[in-house]
Amino acid sequence: MEENIIYIGNKPVMNYVLAVVTQMNGGTDEVFLKARGRAISKAVDVAEIVRNRFIPESDVGSIEISTEEITNNEDVQTNVSTIAIQIKKD
Amino acid sequence: MEENIIYIGNKPVMNYVLAVVTQMNGGTDEVFLKARGRAISKAVDVAEIVRNRFIPESDVGSIEISTEEITNNEDVQTNVSTIAIQIKKD
Repeated sequence: MEENIIYIGNKPVMNYVLAVVTQMNGGTDEVFLKARGRAISKAVDVAEIVRNRFIPESDVGSIEISTEEITNNEDVQTNVSTIAIQIKKD
Repeated sequence: MEENIIYIGNKPVMNYVLAVVTQMNGGTDEVFLKARGRAISKAVDVAEIVRNRFIPESDVGSIEISTEEITNNEDVQTNVSTIAIQIKKD
């Protein structure tokens, strides 16, 4: 089983929407959106735009949230929240 | 069944963490965090901080995302993503 993961970062929302649509139109039945920190809101936007506007036969599957420890530029450890959203076709 | 909803907005994260902890220590077994737009990331932070640091016997239950139509100051309709995170005690 192939896992298709799209990491949500600083690019415009529609870049990631296009990435999902391209993968799904290429025959992939499920895609995982992964994001950390402030990009979490954008990951939710991507999922909603895909299912509402571009791929009506897709839907949101599992949504998982978690915490990762990261080390910043000054070597200080902080926690950052993460999200993984599954988008799947019927 | 009482539904306890905490709306996540512009206040600091720890204000909302305190609100959840207060409700749960008062005997509530489940709380729903609701947020829109950029506050979605903060809602995830609140859920993670509550379960990892303050209420070890709590866990994240259902997570639902959706889209709401809102009308802005200039009477233009736009869409905003929303999230609802259930936090529940065992």
